[in-house]
This record gives sequence, C-alpha cells and structure tokens, in this order.
Amino acid sequence: MSSIWGNAIKISIFGESHGPGIGVILDGLPSGFTLDLKEINREMKRRAPGTSDLATARKEEDIPEMLSGYFKGKTTGTPLAAFIRNNDIKSKDYSQMEKIMRPSHADYTGYMRYKGFNDYRGSGHFSGRITAPLVFAGAICKQILAQEGVTIGAHIKSMAHILDKSFDEVKVDDNLLRGLSKEELPLLDKSIASKMKDLIQDIKEEGDSVGGIIECIICGLESGLGNPFFDSVESTLAHLMFSIPAIKGIEFGAGFSIASMKGSEANDSYYYEENQVKTRSNHNGGIIGGITNGMPILFRVAVKPTPSIAKRQKTINIETKEETTLEIKGRHDPTILPRIIPVVEAAAAIGVLDIMMSTRGEIK
Amino acid sequence: MSSIWGNAIKISIFGESHGPGIGVILDGLPSGFTLDLKEINREMKRRAPGTSDLATARKEEDIPEMLSGYFKGKTTGTPLAAFIRNNDIKSKDYSQMEKIMRPSHADYTGYMRYKGFNDYRGSGHFSGRITAPLVFAGAICKQILAQEGVTIGAHIKSMAHILDKSFDEVKVDDNLLRGLSKEELPLLDKSIASKMKDLIQDIKEEGDSVGGIIECIICGLESGLGNPFFDSVESTLAHLMFSIPAIKGIEFGAGFSIASMKGSEANDSYYYEENQVKTRSNHNGGIIGGITNGMPILFRVAVKPTPSIAKRQKTINIETKEETTLEIKGRHDPTILPRIIPVVEAAAAIGVLDIMMSTRGEIK
Amino acid sequence: MSSIWGNAIKISIFGESHGPGIGVILDGLPSGFTLDLKEINREMKRRAPGTSDLATARKEEDIPEMLSGYFKGKTTGTPLAAFIRNNDIKSKDYSQMEKIMRPSHADYTGYMRYKGFNDYRGSGHFSGRITAPLVFAGAICKQILAQEGVTIGAHIKSMAHILDKSFDEVKVDDNLLRGLSKEELPLLDKSIASKMKDLIQDIKEEGDSVGGIIECIICGLESGLGNPFFDSVESTLAHLMFSIPAIKGIEFGAGFSIASMKGSEANDSYYYEENQVKTRSNHNGGIIGGITNGMPILFRVAVKPTPSIAKRQKTINIETKEETTLEIKGRHDPTILPRIIPVVEAAAAIGVLDIMMSTRGEIK
Amino acid sequence: MSSIWGNAIKISIFGESHGPGIGVILDGLPSGFTLDLKEINREMKRRAPGTSDLATARKEEDIPEMLSGYFKGKTTGTPLAAFIRNNDIKSKDYSQMEKIMRPSHADYTGYMRYKGFNDYRGSGHFSGRITAPLVFAGAICKQILAQEGVTIGAHIKSMAHILDKSFDEVKVDDNLLRGLSKEELPLLDKSIASKMKDLIQDIKEEGDSVGGIIECIICGLESGLGNPFFDSVESTLAHLMFSIPAIKGIEFGAGFSIASMKGSEANDSYYYEENQVKTRSNHNGGIIGGITNGMPILFRVAVKPTPSIAKRQKTINIETKEETTLEIKGRHDPTILPRIIPVVEAAAAIGVLDIMMSTRGEIK
Repeated sequence: MSSIWGNAIKISIFGESHGPGIGVILDGLPSGFTLDLKEINREMKRRAPGTSDLATARKEEDIPEMLSGYFKGKTTGTPLAAFIRNNDIKSKDYSQMEKIMRPSHADYTGYMRYKGFNDYRGSGHFSGRITAPLVFAGAICKQILAQEGVTIGAHIKSMAHILDKSFDEVKVDDNLLRGLSKEELPLLDKSIASKMKDLIQDIKEEGDSVGGIIECIICGLESGLGNPFFDSVESTLAHLMFSIPAIKGIEFGAGFSIASMKGSEANDSYYYEENQVKTRSNHNGGIIGGITNGMPILFRVAVKPTPSIAKRQKTINIETKEETTLEIKGRHDPTILPRIIPVVEAAAAIGVLDIMMSTRGEIK
Repeated sequence: MSSIWGNAIKISIFGESHGPGIGVILDGLPSGFTLDLKEINREMKRRAPGTSDLATARKEEDIPEMLSGYFKGKTTGTPLAAFIRNNDIKSKDYSQMEKIMRPSHADYTGYMRYKGFNDYRGSGHFSGRITAPLVFAGAICKQILAQEGVTIGAHIKSMAHILDKSFDEVKVDDNLLRGLSKEELPLLDKSIASKMKDLIQDIKEEGDSVGGIIECIICGLESGLGNPFFDSVESTLAHLMFSIPAIKGIEFGAGFSIASMKGSEANDSYYYEENQVKTRSNHNGGIIGGITNGMPILFRVAVKPTPSIAKRQKTINIETKEETTLEIKGRHDPTILPRIIPVVEAAAAIGVLDIMMSTRGEIK
Repeated sequence: MSSIWGNAIKISIFGESHGPGIGVILDGLPSGFTLDLKEINREMKRRAPGTSDLATARKEEDIPEMLSGYFKGKTTGTPLAAFIRNNDIKSKDYSQMEKIMRPSHADYTGYMRYKGFNDYRGSGHFSGRITAPLVFAGAICKQILAQEGVTIGAHIKSMAHILDKSFDEVKVDDNLLRGLSKEELPLLDKSIASKMKDLIQDIKEEGDSVGGIIECIICGLESGLGNPFFDSVESTLAHLMFSIPAIKGIEFGAGFSIASMKGSEANDSYYYEENQVKTRSNHNGGIIGGITNGMPILFRVAVKPTPSIAKRQKTINIETKEETTLEIKGRHDPTILPRIIPVVEAAAAIGVLDIMMSTRGEIK
Repeated sequence: MSSIWGNAIKISIFGESHGPGIGVILDGLPSGFTLDLKEINREMKRRAPGTSDLATARKEEDIPEMLSGYFKGKTTGTPLAAFIRNNDIKSKDYSQMEKIMRPSHADYTGYMRYKGFNDYRGSGHFSGRITAPLVFAGAICKQILAQEGVTIGAHIKSMAHILDKSFDEVKVDDNLLRGLSKEELPLLDKSIASKMKDLIQDIKEEGDSVGGIIECIICGLESGLGNPFFDSVESTLAHLMFSIPAIKGIEFGAGFSIASMKGSEANDSYYYEENQVKTRSNHNGGIIGGITNGMPILFRVAVKPTPSIAKRQKTINIETKEETTLEIKGRHDPTILPRIIPVVEAAAAIGVLDIMMSTRGEIK
C-alpha cells in the first residue's frame, strides 16, 4: 500500500501534482482537541512553494479545506479529512515527461510500477507536492504532542560542504526550536547563513542543484515508549522518513560514527538528575532496544540534490527505446533543504504520536 | 506490536534468551516449495554463537524444529512455525541484571516499557539471540528469491577504522556473494582480514568491543517493485534493519555522501544495454520514488559496538535509585559484525520477498 | 480504526451527514483500468435519497468528484480519492440531537465514544449517508470483478412478514441480477411487489418503520480463494456487512437453518459437471474451511427497521440526566431495504475483490 | 493471512492436526498479569477431545507448554507463545483423504488453495483441533477481562429441534455463567438435558451428526467501546466467530427476528437506573453504531453438523477425476456443540479485550 500508515493513528494520503489536488485523512485522533488553524497554516507555508527566493516559483496557497472530523473548532475523533486544491498548474511544462525519463526522478520506476498508466504530469503522485498533506497531518500531531510536553525541531546540518553545528553542541530548548522554525534557513550557527545563500544562488545560476543533511530533535518524550524489534522507534521513524521523496539515509544518535567507536566510548552511562534517569552522552539518540530512554531523540537524514536540473542530461525515451538527452525547463528548487525541514518534522510528529498512543493508549 | 511484521508474507517472532527457547511463524509462504534444510542450517550456523574464536563462547546448536506448515519436504502454504530450544543457559551470569542497568543495553528501557516484569535474564526478549528466528525465516525467503533469480550478499565494509572496498568497486556475481557467506570475516579486500583479526584480539584482551559498517547488496530484482511513500522499498528495508538490535543507521546507494553532491553528479543517467534499462551510476541504490529500477539494491548499516564490555562502567541501580558501577562478566562478543551479517541478509530477504509478493502477487 | 479496511486493496472512508461532505480513498487498484462513470453514477443513484416515493425526501445528487488516481479515463494505480459534497442540508431538523438520545440510533454510543465532541447533526459520521462512498468504491470493484467473470446481485428476501423466494429456488444468471438492480423493489417473485408497496405506505402513514432481510449472491468466483481461520471468506464478508449501519445478522448458505439439519442432510456432495467440480446442494454458501469452492457465494443479512420514527418514544436527555420523550420530525425512510441493497452489493464486491487479489495476486 | 488477527493485542495461530503440534503467540498483553494456569487448563479441558462420552474418543491432554512471555508466574508483556504437542495420532485413519474429498470438509478447498501441497492428514491445518490455541488465548483474555469486571458465558440455544431458553429470559449473573461452564451440556433449561443426550446417542448410532445454535453473552462491558463502520463491535466479533470452523451464521440481539419488527417495537428505549443509562429491551444486543451501549452483548451463532459421518456419501476422487462414494471411519463427534462453546467464548474474549484495549488504551 502506498498511501496508508499507522497503528493507533492512521493517515491516508492521496493526490497528484497536476490533478484536482492533494489530501489526507487522519483516523484515530483524540476527540475534543482544539486545533490552532493559524499554526497549521504557518506550518503549511513553511513547506509551500513560492514563499522564498531560494525555492521554486510555483505559487500555491496550500490552504487545506477541512472535509470532515472537525466540528465547532475541535476534533470529533472520527476521521479528519483535508483537501488542498491545485491552483497554479502549468501542465505544458511537463508534456515531454510521458516519454523522456528524467534521471533520478520516479518517471521510469513509476512507469514500470503502473505499466505506463500513472499520471506523469509534474511527477504526478510521486511529486514532492504530496508531502503537503504530511505537513498538515504533522501540524495536528505536533499540537497534540505539545500538550503532552513534546516538542520537535530541525535545522540544516549541512548543505553540500557547508556544515552547521549539531544539536549535541548547543543547549536545546523550546525557544531555540521555535526560532528555527521561523527562519528562511534554519541553522544553529547563523554565521554560515550568508555563505549558504550564496551557494544556493550560484547553484541556481549553474542550473544545478545541491543536497544536504537535516538534523531533527524530539524533546520531552517519556521513557518506555516503543517496542523491541519490528515496531522499534527507529523502525517507525525510519519508515516514515524514507516515505519522504529525496531521503537516502537516516542515522540515530552517533549514527554512522558509532561504527568506529569502542563500546567503552559508545555506551551511554546512566545517572540520576533530580530523581530522573539520564545518560551522560546520547550516542543512542534516545532509543535503546527500540524503546525511548527519556533522552531527546536525535536523528539526521541525508537529502539528495533535487533531480530536476537545467543542465543537459543523458537519458532514454521509453517509447522509442532510444537514448536521448534532456534539459529540464521550468521552475525548480536549487535545493529542497529549507522546504523539506517541515516535512521531516511532520513525519517525526506523526511517528512519535503514534508510538505514544500505541504504547500507553489514548491521549488524555 | 513488537513481534509481527509483513504484508504478503507475515512473520511473528517470540522468545527469550534464557527461557525455553525462541521461534518464529511465517505466514503467506507459497505452497509446494521444497526447502533445502541443509542450507537453512548453514545459515543458522553463520549466526550461531560458539562457532568461531572471534565470538562469544556460548554454544548453541540452534537447529530449528519445524512445528507446522512443512509436509513431505515442502511448504504447505499454511503457517510454518519453527522453534529453537535454548540449551546452554548460564543464568547465574545474569543475576545482577534485575537491578543494575547495563549501559546501552535495553535493561532500563525494557524495565520502563514492561514495568519491571520483563524477563531480565540475558537481555530476555531483547537478546540478540532473537535474531536466530529471523535468520531462519530469511533463509527460507532467500531460497524462494533464488528461484526468482534474486541473490543477496553482504560484507564488513568497516570495523572501527579498518575499511574494506565497496560493492561499487568490484564485479558482483553469485560466486562472489556465495564465497563471502562462507568466510569467517566476509571482506571484499581479503588483504585486510589479518588486520581485523588482530584488532578483534586486542579489543578482546582490553575487555572492550568495537563497531562497524555492513554493506549489503541485492541483485537480480526486476524494476517496478515497491511503492511511493509509506511502503517504499527504503521504508520497508529500513524498518526491518532497525528491528535488528545494534543498528543505528542505514543509507541507500550513495547515502550520506549524496548530501554533498550536486544534482548533475548525483543523478543516475539511463541507457539501454541489450534492451535492458540501466543507469551509469547507482547513487540511488536501485530505488527511485520508493520503487526498484532494476539496478542492484545497495545499502549500508551502522552497527554499534557490543554494549557488553568487561571494563568498569558507571550506571544506576533501579531498585535503590542510586548510582553504582558495573563490570560485566561472562562470555561476550568483542564485535558482532561477522554474526550480524547473516541477520542483515535475512532481514533483506524477508523484506524483498514481501515487496515482490505484495507488488506482483504470488510467486509462481 | 473506524475508517480503513482491506489488505490487497484498502479503502478509507470519511465524512459527516451535515458537514462539507463525504468521501473515500481506494488504494491498491490495478492501473490502467477503464472506469465506466455512467455505471458508477447509476449505482450511486440506486442508493441516493430522493429518487423514489418509498424513501426519504432529502435530495442529493451524490455525484462523486474524482480527486486523484484517475487519468485519461483510467485508474492510475495510485490512490483513487472521491468526494461527494453535501448539498441539501437542513440542520435545524436535528438541533435537539445534541442532548436527546434517539433510541437505537448511535447518538448515545457516539457521545460516549467521543466524549460529546462528535458531530451530532443528522447522525454525523454515523449517518447511513456515509455508505455512499462505499457504493462508489463497490461500483469500481464490481467493474473489475465483472471483467474477471464475477457478478453480484441482491434482492429483498423479506420485508416484515412478506417473504420473497430465495436465489436457491430460481435460475440465477447475469440478466436476472442486472434486472434486479434496476427495480424500485428488487424481488424474485414480482407478484409480491404491490403488497410491499402497500406495506411501506401504511408504515409511512403510521409514522413507523419496518425491517427485513436482504439476500445476496456472488456468481463466477473460482475455487481456492480465501483462507482458513482469521481471513476466511465468511469473516471478510461478515466484517464488511456489519460495517453497514442497521445490519444485525448474517448467514451463509443454509445459515441458521443448518442448525437443525443432520450431517447427512447438510453435507454438500461433490460431482463433476463438464470437468468442473460442483456440489449438489449449496448449504455451505460456496465457502468451506473459509475458502471458495467454486459454487455461488450466497448470504443473507438482517436489516433492522429504521430507528427514526415519528411516533413518540421514551428516552433520556444526556445533559440534564433526566428521562424524557421524543418525536422525530423531518424526512425519514419508512424502510431502508431498497436503498441498502446497493450498499450490501458494494460491500460484497469490495470484500470479494480483496480476497481475490490477496489470494492470487494482481488482477491481470 | 490465515493465522494472524488483532489490533491492540495480536494472536498468531499455527499447526496441523497430525503434525508435531499446534500453538499460538499472543502479542500486546499487559505486563505483570498473574496467570491462573489451573483455570487455563480447565478451559482447555472443556474443548479437549476424549473427556466425555458425547464426543470423539481421541485422547489429548492438550496441556500447553509456555514457550515465552511468561516469567515468575506473570506475563512479561513480550510475545507469549504456547505449544501443544500432538500425541494420540492415528494417521492411518486418514490415508484416503489425499484423494477422496470429504463433503463439507475443507479437503477440496484446501487442495485448490494450496495446490495439493497442504497436509491432508486429519484435516491438517483446517482441523477443529487448531481451535485449541484459540481457547488457550481466550482463557488468558478472559482472566484479564474478569479483572475489568467483564464476564462471558454461553449455552446451547438449540440442538436440532430441541430448544433451550434464551439469556433474555433469565437473570444472568456470574454464578449462572460459571455454572454453565462446568456442565457437560450447558443449558439454561436443565430439564431438556436428557432429551439432548438421547438425541446425541441416537445420532451416534445412526452414524450421523447434528448441528445447533450457541448463544453467548458478554456482561459488564462499559459503554463507548468500539468504532463506527469497519471496526464495529459486530464486525470484530463476527470476524472472529467465522474463523471458527463450522460456524455458518451470527446474529446480535434480536438478530434475524428484528427483520420482522417495526421500528416502534425494535427500538431500545433509554432510561436511568441509579444514574446508569440502560435500555428497556436489548434488541441491539448491546451494540449501536458499532459501539457498546453498556448493556450485555448478546449474540448467537449457527453451528453446522459435523461433516464427518459414518454414512455412505457421494463424492469425487480428485486424482482420477471420477465420482465415488465414501464412508468415513474412525472417531468423530456426533455433535461439536458442547466442545465449540469454549471456543466461542474464547473468540469473544479475544475480540472484546482487543476492542477494549484499542479504544481506551492499556489495561491498568
């Protein structure tokens, strides 16, 4: 199944980039929860195209219409559906897509999966645009989690070879995370922002694109959530993260660098701080044996450079079965790093709320 | 749910390290498939303790007893259950575990998750021993996949700072993969084997442990398998990999290094080779938009050093709520890298067979 | 989860009677299937209110808007979403529902389940109106099944004490089933139609309502579909049937009357007819051991009388916690039997297509 | 999937009648729950063969061995597995089963489903013997439910044409239900017991078998449990009941007789009794809109006569594709009504505990 995920809460997403629109159903939400619509729309805008010079020029309001499950300002507890109508559609930009397979886009794999019947316009169902419903769902989950004392934030850990600090190196609090969510380029070390902007500008002029790493932190989670083996917290979060187009890697805590540590270096030793169990280091990223240990959950995801570039590329024509070249015209992001941040946070929120509700039952 | 995974095929695992035994049910297998029991047992032995100087001295035959779903040498198609009875149990080694939380082990998180009622002997249900049923299930899936022309192999990409070559740098064929599966230290560059053995010996003498990276390849998969979003091939494989204790990161294709590439470098350009669609590079690791593109699936997982070390460690006593120190006695692996390889391969086999059967229906 | 069902295909429904509208997502459909929209709308009209003197006067066009998964007249294979906007909403009719619990309606149970936050207008999410998306989904499944040689039909087996013949007593072919689907009162014995109409008229004048039994048949299914135990064909169909509001019983084949038979009477003996395995009787309703045997699937469901009646009823006020009486004004069905028929058929189609695709894989 | 069921708790069953044995895994159980093993064994004996003159002579102790998830007399919260080894196996009785399809047994459908590779000895995986693990799982669920104030009981509502009273007609309390569970023929009207015994004896002598109806009641459930539509309480219980071999119908509350009622007769009117909401009648069987209303859940299932009869029957030889006749030798139940009662209760307990835990979260 491509479109449904979850246990205690379930989300179903649908839509295509150049069809009528995109949407989501959330099932299993607590009833009587007051939604902050302004905050939901703020989250939607963080991901929306056309809001920054650094991203694609496609303009979409991306204001979701509530179709069900919402009554008198509160969740009803029955399925909450929302729909975002597509507006600024320029289908002609994408007409060659039916035959010419864009490298590293899902044109070819989608063609093979759906035997040539998938909507090829603007990547169709494979479009990054389908992450807008995820952000919507995540915005709701975030609000419920906030009430439980759980906050989520993320920043650009690296863009190409420009490196930001890590959450491990700074004091993380709600203010910091809130602040990050309002920046055009969320960074812990703000001194590198202009360098990144210059890089984006250069890349844009080259007609190329650039990748990077997003680091995400989840604070305030109680210990004892999650499961050993198949429903480990890592499994749950990784599953969701790899649902986001462009993610090619994920690591928790020390991640790949733990591979070159000794046990005596890697082990997180326990101590008591005001009767709370803590660990001196957090190389396990807040998760041991698949279960939260009360420390912040820390993970990083690798984001590949946007595959849509203006430069000429070699590829194939699936109809004539011949090799050809391709120059992708139109509006494209030189990097999706700033816009993917709210998607990563949203997926984290959906995952963590589901884990919380699956383990300890309903939210009070 | 901690113990059940899958769609077209489902596996349920159970057991504890020092209880009666461990086991697994596989449901959804094709009927009439002839099992090669000798090959299953060979896979079991690759993971089993006590078979090498490089690993723990615990001796377990780990010969699974078939409990159901197997008749006249063939699968029946109904649930196939297998059980491995625990034999060499030294419970006294683990008696302090009830109160003293071993750092980076699941003692504390298991205690919190199950309110102190979990079986704490030898990590109980959190034991790496529970991966034996995974290897059993994977061995069956591998045999079915082999019939479909799909082969899986893995090697130690790195141990501490000792690096092996990558599958990207060598010619990969069935012989190579078969050969790797028979080595004590599966490596592409055999010249580094003695260096690794020395490192393991040193680490053992220090009473410490060491981590590393396993690289796995899946060859022969057709294109068009998998799904966009929640059931992407990456989501499926990552979900399973993070079910294996000790895994802290996963990356596909170029993985984290794609984050510093430009689009023009990262994109895998298509061409035709004898009417087959191929890509010149494989930075996407055989998966685009969550769906296979016919190139080998390539991924790497980060394995943390075994948390059980002889060295003195700081920790807490959960009963007295006081800080204390701990020296872990008994038999332990200085590294689990060689023994985790068949587990990674098994999880990959389970995931890939499920994707294949979910996408295109029953195996013929 | 209230809103998601399925294995090989999954459906998610949402909506409220007096909110913006109602809808459905279908995931897992084969790609490239040409939809007959006219036939879908015909099915929608069979269930829609306001089309007959025998039913509620609420007028709804119930024309679904396709939101995704549909391109150039064909299914894409990605999630197909459809939405039906509510038009003829008279919310004032339902204002007392917030406090006065209508007997045998879900007002009280919905209130307890959702802590008073559910949309109480016109039964909200509990409305029979939410079966319109089921009919839409079923209409698509029916078309796919028809291509596989499977047809589904149903008739009113009884209304109050007026009894129709059984499918067992007549020759069932596609013509008969197609004919039934076009009648205002689908009956095998058309001579009782006027008696039923009179009964409905009488009941309407009394301000009362009446129940009955719907009999459904599924023809053309191959043998060997389904599973023993938890995913038996009976389990699957019963699960879906009890998702339809007002259904209080289901029986397969001889059903409850098998309880008074001897084994020698009940057993369906096998024979060969043109190399096809057949049974002389069909007391098992086409299903043995949870699996189809190639005979038609035959089942009957008990439909309770519409709980909305004009007659004065005793009940409670949930706010004041006092007993009170209630007279339900507004437009109501004296019986939902004719309108529930397409819902039963739709649920059967969804269930059978899922069983077919789960057992033997993709539809070609 | 044939063998896995559940949401908050999941059960996986496996095994064959004449293989090594049968078993079950329960996942999602609360941790720290003290199991009453004696009571579990009492439940097992209620279903076990060879304990009564009224049933098959096969002798099986059916004492389950705990394989995991049970430590120091309590559940650990991790998967609890149990295995029952088959002892009294007379395979020669069943040797003709490979080719001669017993009418109304799953021989033919199993053959078609599994392409002739299923274990045909003694019905294999289709054997009623596989309900023993269900009884084991149900016995655990019952104990957890009892702690929550929920009790379950059942009786023979009818055998052939001999009718017992209904739970509706008597005062139901724990004593009554407990008493029923200890009787050879659980009946509300004990005066008909000897008549039933005579019937069973007659049927046995005839070499025939007889069916009947089991009525089950679930007392003490709070209101507000369950869901509208796909996870209605009726859907959940019906799904499980039709997993039990031999069940051909289910009805809740007034069931099929509601079909001939008027709304004014069928509606269950509310009132307050000591601040508790009650209904004067219980035609809805404790469930409205898929959700519990606090009244007892009442349902009845139709049980077909045991298909194994000594009388000569017409059937087919699947190998030669010819018609033939069959006389089934060996030990068989003239009726499975007494032995199916604990299975129905067990399935009800599993379903109700899952609904409770899914709706309101963990059991405290």
